[in-house]
Amino acid sequence: MTASTDGSKQVQTPAGYAPLDAPAIRTLLAELPEVAATLGGSPDRWGVREVGDGNLNLVFLVNGSVGGVWVKQSLPHIRAIESWHLTVERTYFEQAYFRAVQPYAGRFIPAILYYEPHLYCIVMEQLTRHVVLRGGLIEGYRYPRVARDIAEFVACSTFFTSDLGQALEPKMDGVARFAANHALLRITSDLVFTDPYRVSSLNRWTSPQLDAVAAEIRADAPLRIAAARRGRQFLASAQALIHGDLHTGSVMVTPDDTRVIDPEFAFYGPIGMDLGAFAGNLLMNYFAQPGHATATDAREEHAAWVLAQIPVFWTHFRARFLELWATQARGDVYAPSMFADSAGATALQAERERFMGELFADMLGFAAVKMIRRILGFAHNADFERITDPDRRAACERAVLDLARMLLVTPERFASIDDVLDAARDRAAKGSQ
Amino acid sequence: MTASTDGSKQVQTPAGYAPLDAPAIRTLLAELPEVAATLGGSPDRWGVREVGDGNLNLVFLVNGSVGGVWVKQSLPHIRAIESWHLTVERTYFEQAYFRAVQPYAGRFIPAILYYEPHLYCIVMEQLTRHVVLRGGLIEGYRYPRVARDIAEFVACSTFFTSDLGQALEPKMDGVARFAANHALLRITSDLVFTDPYRVSSLNRWTSPQLDAVAAEIRADAPLRIAAARRGRQFLASAQALIHGDLHTGSVMVTPDDTRVIDPEFAFYGPIGMDLGAFAGNLLMNYFAQPGHATATDAREEHAAWVLAQIPVFWTHFRARFLELWATQARGDVYAPSMFADSAGATALQAERERFMGELFADMLGFAAVKMIRRILGFAHNADFERITDPDRRAACERAVLDLARMLLVTPERFASIDDVLDAARDRAAKGSQ
Repeated sequence: MTASTDGSKQVQTPAGYAPLDAPAIRTLLAELPEVAATLGGSPDRWGVREVGDGNLNLVFLVNGSVGGVWVKQSLPHIRAIESWHLTVERTYFEQAYFRAVQPYAGRFIPAILYYEPHLYCIVMEQLTRHVVLRGGLIEGYRYPRVARDIAEFVACSTFFTSDLGQALEPKMDGVARFAANHALLRITSDLVFTDPYRVSSLNRWTSPQLDAVAAEIRADAPLRIAAARRGRQFLASAQALIHGDLHTGSVMVTPDDTRVIDPEFAFYGPIGMDLGAFAGNLLMNYFAQPGHATATDAREEHAAWVLAQIPVFWTHFRARFLELWATQARGDVYAPSMFADSAGATALQAERERFMGELFADMLGFAAVKMIRRILGFAHNADFERITDPDRRAACERAVLDLARMLLVTPERFASIDDVLDAARDRAAKGSQ
Repeated sequence: MTASTDGSKQVQTPAGYAPLDAPAIRTLLAELPEVAATLGGSPDRWGVREVGDGNLNLVFLVNGSVGGVWVKQSLPHIRAIESWHLTVERTYFEQAYFRAVQPYAGRFIPAILYYEPHLYCIVMEQLTRHVVLRGGLIEGYRYPRVARDIAEFVACSTFFTSDLGQALEPKMDGVARFAANHALLRITSDLVFTDPYRVSSLNRWTSPQLDAVAAEIRADAPLRIAAARRGRQFLASAQALIHGDLHTGSVMVTPDDTRVIDPEFAFYGPIGMDLGAFAGNLLMNYFAQPGHATATDAREEHAAWVLAQIPVFWTHFRARFLELWATQARGDVYAPSMFADSAGATALQAERERFMGELFADMLGFAAVKMIRRILGFAHNADFERITDPDRRAACERAVLDLARMLLVTPERFASIDDVLDAARDRAAKGSQ
């Protein structure tokens, strides 16, 4: 990220762009009759509170006498590091993703009420009852629907935007639209697939506890090759429209509802990247649970519940994707008219199973690089950051790295999701010794 | 191609577009000082002759007192079938490809003198001494440089536009630009990867001689799956900017010069598609040689020479691509800074060899589908069309189909290029019995 962190290079913001504040938000929303009705009451009485806790954006909670909305706006820099400039166009890609997947997976995203293209700001449904999944899991709450819901979300959003579910013309239009998402592709390419495997001033880890394992990983040639190969796949596999950052911080939940947020990294990439982001972040939460144990709650049952969501996620995704392929194949590849006879139908079913095997392997590979970057790279997870004792945190993080290395270097050991669970339990047990 | 052949649907041509004729060409070129100087003399004395023999375009030979140029313009339909409408934008993609590869492989393309964006016409260098490679090979001529030159062309044009040779930002701009090439992607998806494997009114073959084998191929489930899998790879593997139609009719040669023409199918796709198009068309020419034998020339030596160009092509491509990767890796994948130590360098070299193995397998798979579509699909090759005796033609074509089926269904039998040559010789010998 050398160029991006060069403080001497100012990013030009587009004409008409200015960061919003409370008065500007009142003026903007007052001119939108539906939004004003949703809020209710006089605009000067609307409460406006900035609550963004992410890295990249302003997020405002706006409330009137009747209801509320969220307003999200891009900033021309990364919040955490103001000298790290970033173009504001990412909110365009966020709303474009929401619009693209709405017909297929609309019940799992917030309603988008308005997009202001000059201000790069989105006005959306306020999810007052929802919490961020990661935080809820850290605190020990269970969400019985979430694994199935995210499985359904990934199956529908990727199948219908892939060459299996969509004709090449609209698919290629989507490829072209999201290929312009340079700034966030650059972040992923550098921070996920490159920096953790070399010396970089942006890397950080629990030190000195993990110094040796960080050096081991930077010296592990087969691991580096496996990670770089996933980086190549990320940039050159235009399989479907993916969220691009589908970790547990991009999911908001209640016990009976699930919504996916923050798709600003969206582009046409490998489906396994979304699968791996979610599965990898469940695994990290699992490994973090002993770090959140108290005298009265060892977190063993909760950890087991978190781990059990991974097979629920994969199994439901697999079944749903196969079902869509069998019933909604309107794309240009594996044209049903090529396989109308009985031998063709049998061979096509076997090919579908093989394809799911590819996605399974991709899920594990991308999960592994996602885990490594959260322990050794620039951006870390609350799952571990909230463990204040560094020795205790490092023990959890080391178990994550152990599993990630196995997934990347010996993928042949993971033929089924049970193999993953067994290895995770084994690593967790070793870490707690 | 149901929609495309629907005569009731008129394609709208863009404002300012009209098919060119001789007076319009004189007016256009007279306003271009460099082109006018290249031609020389008075515009009203320039000779203008329409010589297009392809399916999709008008091609004019324009000559003045000093020199000549070519003018190529898209037509809003396929020449051979006027009711088959096609948008005229493809010439835009042709010139965009020439511009994109010019810095890396400029000596293997014609000089582009002018592009007129409203008329969708390209003014380019006239290659007076050159002939179309396919025609020359059919007539028994040898071109000692062509296999190495096309290897060099494919290595340079694909390496420098891939994530190995180019940063993601310009690469994604290229992906976006060429993803709009809908009409020609549609042709490839339908005519190459779909129609030959199902009943379609657009298919034709030497009948009744090949009726049985055409039916066998339509009934061969593993073959259909393998072909469809290549179709999936074609649409979802944004590996590099490819020509998209690099057969021996897209190459013009003299004994000491090689130029690639007609890149209107260009887009970001699998490198193996360009490799397979060229290798597959050399194989077809090889199998066609007995059909061109005469009492005084059995064509055995010439056939052997054509076949021998395939290992020259692959070996040189492989060496050149590896050399570029070792010395010009300025892309975002396999970042050199990740592999700076000696273990890393060794592992990276092994990974490069593995990648070349992937490209080799891709070349053979795409060669096979290219061969099948030219024997059983809509568009056929002069290599076979010029064999007037249908029994003789069918014997050559059957050998092509035999090899293509082996390549698709038993790829594990082809570990090296020698395995391909052995199988080709074996098939050719069986065909002549």
